[in-house]
Amino acid sequence: MSWAEPRLRILGVDPGSRKTGFGFIDWSGRQSRWVNSGCLKLPEKMELPDRLVFIAEKLEALVQAEQPDCAVIEQMFVAKHARAGVVLGHVRGAILLTLARLKLPLHEYPPLQVKQTVVGVGSADKQQVGHMVRVLLNLKQVPQEDEADALAVAITHAHNTSSLALQVVPK
Amino acid sequence: MSWAEPRLRILGVDPGSRKTGFGFIDWSGRQSRWVNSGCLKLPEKMELPDRLVFIAEKLEALVQAEQPDCAVIEQMFVAKHARAGVVLGHVRGAILLTLARLKLPLHEYPPLQVKQTVVGVGSADKQQVGHMVRVLLNLKQVPQEDEADALAVAITHAHNTSSLALQVVPK
Repeated sequence: MSWAEPRLRILGVDPGSRKTGFGFIDWSGRQSRWVNSGCLKLPEKMELPDRLVFIAEKLEALVQAEQPDCAVIEQMFVAKHARAGVVLGHVRGAILLTLARLKLPLHEYPPLQVKQTVVGVGSADKQQVGHMVRVLLNLKQVPQEDEADALAVAITHAHNTSSLALQVVPK
Repeated sequence: MSWAEPRLRILGVDPGSRKTGFGFIDWSGRQSRWVNSGCLKLPEKMELPDRLVFIAEKLEALVQAEQPDCAVIEQMFVAKHARAGVVLGHVRGAILLTLARLKLPLHEYPPLQVKQTVVGVGSADKQQVGHMVRVLLNLKQVPQEDEADALAVAITHAHNTSSLALQVVPK
């Protein structure tokens, strides 16, 4: 596969109340290629508003550097632990605001669809997701959990982009 | 009371998943004066990320226009309706991010303390809060609900600011 081909650069984000994973991949319409991924660890002692600023600034810098065509995030359902759900809602709201202000087209997928796309079964566990992300992107090692989830949602969008031809911008 | 005195301009915000109230008051150390208040109604048909951008832009314009010294918001507890709590968490996260990026000092008060300060009893209902906000700010009519709640949290901060002398900036 030649990467002189047009490609879609996808940013996947996995928001968390303590850590937020991110992953950039390039999708040629046939294959995904890893570009960049990692984990933003939120400083624990920071007050929530400052943590939101921290994450917004880091995300903006990553988007500036990697210039994705779109961003993808898992749909959020009601959390098992209501308190964690409230904080996660704040983090997710700050991330959606930041990405929307950067004018990135935003896509959301339910967690079930992400697991189905990446592993083949909706009941897949974290380990299986990490393993398949490693295989699909030809990585030397399994990424850390939030990083793998961010890459998995990016891969999901790649595989579910039916009208790629319309979206791909030659670079 | 002369308003040539130093004063603290306080922005109170009452985030909601459909409507967000705001209220600016000036506090002289002895008395509050109404400056501006209202309700940002979120366009219902807008997707959540766009709604967050809408609210961020409106808030930024208000802060630019009114130049408050600080912002105050009610602490959020776990919502009765988990789904509404998730959306509210997103809105609140976007608001906290926006205010923090504007470098406004942020203060939070529990709902109980707001009612106690404004009405005198923690069990006060919405109507009593609206009535007392009207009386305390010498308004001609009771503000709408979210607007009254935003003004109430601003009044709460005014009355709980012990070190006003240190915070007041002559204007």
